[in-house]
Amino acid sequence: MAKKKTDFESYFSAATSMVEARLRAILPRRFPKELYDAMRYSVFSDGKRVRPALVLAGARIVGVNARDVLDAACAVELIHTYSLMHDDLPALDNDDFRRGKPTSHKKFGDDMAILAGDALLTYAFELVADNVSRLSVGAGAISEFARAVGKDGMVGGQVVDVKHGSLGKSKARAAHYLDYIHLNKTAKLIEISAKLGALLAQANKKQINALSKYGRAAGLAFQIADDILDEGHESSDFKNSRLTYPEVFGSSAARSRARELADEAKKALGVFQLSASRKFLEYLADFIVERRK
Amino acid sequence: MAKKKTDFESYFSAATSMVEARLRAILPRRFPKELYDAMRYSVFSDGKRVRPALVLAGARIVGVNARDVLDAACAVELIHTYSLMHDDLPALDNDDFRRGKPTSHKKFGDDMAILAGDALLTYAFELVADNVSRLSVGAGAISEFARAVGKDGMVGGQVVDVKHGSLGKSKARAAHYLDYIHLNKTAKLIEISAKLGALLAQANKKQINALSKYGRAAGLAFQIADDILDEGHESSDFKNSRLTYPEVFGSSAARSRARELADEAKKALGVFQLSASRKFLEYLADFIVERRK
Repeated sequence: MAKKKTDFESYFSAATSMVEARLRAILPRRFPKELYDAMRYSVFSDGKRVRPALVLAGARIVGVNARDVLDAACAVELIHTYSLMHDDLPALDNDDFRRGKPTSHKKFGDDMAILAGDALLTYAFELVADNVSRLSVGAGAISEFARAVGKDGMVGGQVVDVKHGSLGKSKARAAHYLDYIHLNKTAKLIEISAKLGALLAQANKKQINALSKYGRAAGLAFQIADDILDEGHESSDFKNSRLTYPEVFGSSAARSRARELADEAKKALGVFQLSASRKFLEYLADFIVERRK
Repeated sequence: MAKKKTDFESYFSAATSMVEARLRAILPRRFPKELYDAMRYSVFSDGKRVRPALVLAGARIVGVNARDVLDAACAVELIHTYSLMHDDLPALDNDDFRRGKPTSHKKFGDDMAILAGDALLTYAFELVADNVSRLSVGAGAISEFARAVGKDGMVGGQVVDVKHGSLGKSKARAAHYLDYIHLNKTAKLIEISAKLGALLAQANKKQINALSKYGRAAGLAFQIADDILDEGHESSDFKNSRLTYPEVFGSSAARSRARELADEAKKALGVFQLSASRKFLEYLADFIVERRK
């Protein structure tokens, strides 16, 4: 386990170093200063870079260099960042702090948090499109990416969370909305991250489906694990009495569901030969449900 | 002139009918209801559909069927719509009415106006990517589209308008910012609309450059004409004492600059043989500066 953990950490840190350097390069300081400053502030605020690491691992597991999909990896991180910036706004979750720092709107004003979020969202598509052009593959990956993070994906999940994500419903109704929210708001971005590298690499259907299953299960596990970690904390979900998995089903059921999903994620990787990337993804699925912060 | 006007109106109305029908088809009523309702409300609120008509005309002038680029035409309208929704927010222009109806945030709340805007922006890229896939062309058009409407395009223009777009500067500084704002906030979306059809049609460089020049000049003319029309009106720009062309350079200079730009736009079309589409675009350039509302 100690050895495995070291391998995991070195794989992860090699991936995040690449991502970090590329993000710095594509987000320089420039005019309009207020916009670039706001984008940089949120992108460089100690994110764990799990999603871009998934993109790189998903490419490597099908035999493609991480460097070939690096811009797509940065793109998913920009999407993740913009979604946090908009979610934190007073009109939505009204959070003043994230990762111990003032949120974008506290630092730059609501106007800049909205516009810098819009700019990051747009830039993400520019980066994926440039990556697609460089690899001379079809635009299908861009469509899938858009679907994962749009009205029937991440944004839809956020809308349902805002409109139907509070407590006080029957258990059946709560469970229905909770599934929708977890799948769309959280899991679909993680799913597309896991499969985007393979899509860009034009991997075969079996491989793409395996990464898709892996990402979806890991993404659902991630959200339940997050809910469990938030229990008892003065978190935003708690503050707004949001629906969470442990609230609806109880802590013990939540824990076993997260475990089950992590196992499902790992099982999906069975179509791939054993490799450093497969091991990384397996360890990551366990890490997601076992982490303590 | 009467005949010309009739030709213009029938070309325009044929284009907008196609766009209108397609927008209805791609934005049905569905779950999440609150999100689709908010998207539909703003997309179907009497927009003139100038930008999508440009996409269709730009395709036809290079010999491609309007129908082949219809989704890309809808995409530019979704971008235009999302930008208005976000600009109208209390954190930005704080407008309660647009085209005689309550703005999105007045009707659905700030949260929905933000999220439905995000959804339209994302959906625009899904539509352009789908269109690119169907035509089996490269993703370069998607990158150009993203650049036109992102941090160094429309969003950047909006940021500079918010941060530096108020009166009380030296004339030289005001002129500098005004150029940036008009070019980025308004003209670049009109420019990409004019050239997007030709990009998707893989037209030659000369044709694409001509449409690019046309769109940029027409777009700049459009913004100056808008500023002239707003003079004396209780408009949002007036209310917030925003920089406008007539404020900085005087009404008469504004009028002749708009005229000059419309002529420049028409001149760029000289590379194309005379056709219904060329005549439409020529008339549109004149219409932009001569309209009275």
